[in-house]
Amino acid sequence: MDIDLSPLADYLAEDDLDGYLIDDDSSDADQRYISGFSAPDAYQTLVTPDGAVHLLVSGLEYGRAVKDADADTVTRTADYDAQALATEHGRYEGGLRVTSRFLADHGVESIAVPRNFPTGTADGLREHGLEVTVESEDIVSDIRAVKHDAEIEHIHTAQRANQQAMAVAETMIATADIDADGTLVYEGEPLTSERVTQEIEITLLRHGCSLDETIVACGEHGADPHDRGSGPLEANELIVIDIFPQDKETKYNGDMTRTFCRGEPTDEMVRRYERTYEAFEAALETVEAGVTGKAVHDAVCDVYEDAGYATLRSDPSTDTGFIHSTGHGIGLDVHEAPSVSPVGDELEAGHVITIEPGLYDPAVGGVRIEDLVVVTEDAYENLTDYPIALEPSARVETE
Amino acid sequence: MDIDLSPLADYLAEDDLDGYLIDDDSSDADQRYISGFSAPDAYQTLVTPDGAVHLLVSGLEYGRAVKDADADTVTRTADYDAQALATEHGRYEGGLRVTSRFLADHGVESIAVPRNFPTGTADGLREHGLEVTVESEDIVSDIRAVKHDAEIEHIHTAQRANQQAMAVAETMIATADIDADGTLVYEGEPLTSERVTQEIEITLLRHGCSLDETIVACGEHGADPHDRGSGPLEANELIVIDIFPQDKETKYNGDMTRTFCRGEPTDEMVRRYERTYEAFEAALETVEAGVTGKAVHDAVCDVYEDAGYATLRSDPSTDTGFIHSTGHGIGLDVHEAPSVSPVGDELEAGHVITIEPGLYDPAVGGVRIEDLVVVTEDAYENLTDYPIALEPSARVETE
Repeated sequence: MDIDLSPLADYLAEDDLDGYLIDDDSSDADQRYISGFSAPDAYQTLVTPDGAVHLLVSGLEYGRAVKDADADTVTRTADYDAQALATEHGRYEGGLRVTSRFLADHGVESIAVPRNFPTGTADGLREHGLEVTVESEDIVSDIRAVKHDAEIEHIHTAQRANQQAMAVAETMIATADIDADGTLVYEGEPLTSERVTQEIEITLLRHGCSLDETIVACGEHGADPHDRGSGPLEANELIVIDIFPQDKETKYNGDMTRTFCRGEPTDEMVRRYERTYEAFEAALETVEAGVTGKAVHDAVCDVYEDAGYATLRSDPSTDTGFIHSTGHGIGLDVHEAPSVSPVGDELEAGHVITIEPGLYDPAVGGVRIEDLVVVTEDAYENLTDYPIALEPSARVETE
Repeated sequence: MDIDLSPLADYLAEDDLDGYLIDDDSSDADQRYISGFSAPDAYQTLVTPDGAVHLLVSGLEYGRAVKDADADTVTRTADYDAQALATEHGRYEGGLRVTSRFLADHGVESIAVPRNFPTGTADGLREHGLEVTVESEDIVSDIRAVKHDAEIEHIHTAQRANQQAMAVAETMIATADIDADGTLVYEGEPLTSERVTQEIEITLLRHGCSLDETIVACGEHGADPHDRGSGPLEANELIVIDIFPQDKETKYNGDMTRTFCRGEPTDEMVRRYERTYEAFEAALETVEAGVTGKAVHDAVCDVYEDAGYATLRSDPSTDTGFIHSTGHGIGLDVHEAPSVSPVGDELEAGHVITIEPGLYDPAVGGVRIEDLVVVTEDAYENLTDYPIALEPSARVETE
């Protein structure tokens, strides 16, 4: 993938800085994006004002870095006497000296670093005479926010796996029995959040994806947007399922939420579902390049407030109603730029964002509907192809 | 769990600092350990010289933090006008002002921070008049390295799940057919690293564990300790399987490696396996409180060098032979203190470490044997109960 680092190179040239340095492992999405490299150990990525990318890696990573990375040069720490320096000065100070030598080798005396750059490294390099400035304009985030076709395809692939997992989860809920207490029963056992989560994860694994967390939250659990859910699932209650898998190979993410009610939802549950679907459609109708994330978020608030529900816009201290943002960018991170919220700037073609309005109240439960879309010049392309219905259906064959 | 933060409190008192601040999410093991709290969003943990722990969390996390965290106080960002400050000054500068108010509220004017503390926050707080010093003595790592009984039990639980997964993987290799080309064939398909990895992961999920990566590396792949492996598994080749699962609930990790050869290993393969087993036993015999990690590592180097294999001790530039450390501490991180390597300090009772010698050569493949042990006053307790044999056996029933 031919990424365009010219905004970063321009910034370095304008501010008369010699380089932009990342010191992390490939769990840092910026580093993975710029280096095109994935390694369990920490490594360092330097971008110079000519737009070139230079990696500093351990001997264990060197061969793979030369082969796999999108870098102009790859140097191993041993070339700067890493082991001798660590023995003489200790591991951390030794490492700082190796970095200093690497930077000197590339003629770098002043660097910009990301906000999350380790303070230990920044202060240590300063003691070695380097000038270290925090880059505070989110340049790399903005570069990453606009996706290449290959990235959109990676996200789409993760979202397709997501659809398979959602279908398994929905089918378990749709086909469960209901016992005398109203608890869902599956294969003779009470159907729990944990059981559904496990089947979601196994389905994702079989489709090349993994996830750290997933949400299968029933009733009061679903009224807290950050509650992952636990315990038995009940009929006549709202069940929120939010799945955000990561493709194990590409590391790009998908994200989708559906809300189900097995049995008889109350009128208020149905009303909340309908208003949420309306807010979801209003948001989507607003999406196009040039519109702000704030405008999309406002479209959701308009629908909810018109229906009499609180939002953080109408009441910043509310803990019921619509109490989160409308959406977020997604890519190598589940949450990345752009923001679809009160502080959301202009959307651009190629942004990939979630649209996920929701309503929460411990007395009723939670409702959230979420799709994943690519912003286009005049609207959007939906990367999600999954039915939206409160009543669960059997969508896959069960054994 | 009643953790002992007195070394950190003593350091603050001695250096006349008002607090120790972490600014991360619960993927930061230090923060998770000190706060006893897990949240997807970033939050902040302050330790004051009296040993008290104070959390600053978003409104979405507040309820759970009050309920779950091991903290003396929990404050929500809204109490410091987070939203108004973000609107007025932007999200990042607004956040800095919230942190400044939180620190001022606790009478804190000077802080120590971990090395990985974000430079953006450190420099921003400095601009607001805070004195920020990097804590460079690894105090929190050292506290975490000595495990409480509950932590050892969490690690043991993850290691038991690991054993189930290893048994599934070993059984697949043991029971596979061998086609005319020497490729292993399982259920009619070539048996690949990816297929074995998938079954390992599914088994771990069913035992409450997950993992980011696992290694199933055959032949030349196994000769690179960081290669995860890919493609078909072959008879008469060495297959390295290294599994490091994380318990999804407790977040503690297990770690184990076994090496198998289906079919006929060469004499050199067998020799390498036997010397590695000898090195493994020599290392274990050395382990006890008061012995250094370096001494344990030297015991491994002695065996290998006596047998004529290169080590990084005998040849710092070698890329074949024994080319990594003997082991590492494990807990909330897969790799944490103490180090069992040339720079390994004294082991203490309660340290949990891996012992994992190995030999690597692209012409032969890789061999590694790894168990997980608790250091005791006079030896160790092995948390691993899994056979060590080059020839794979069927250890679980297959369908």
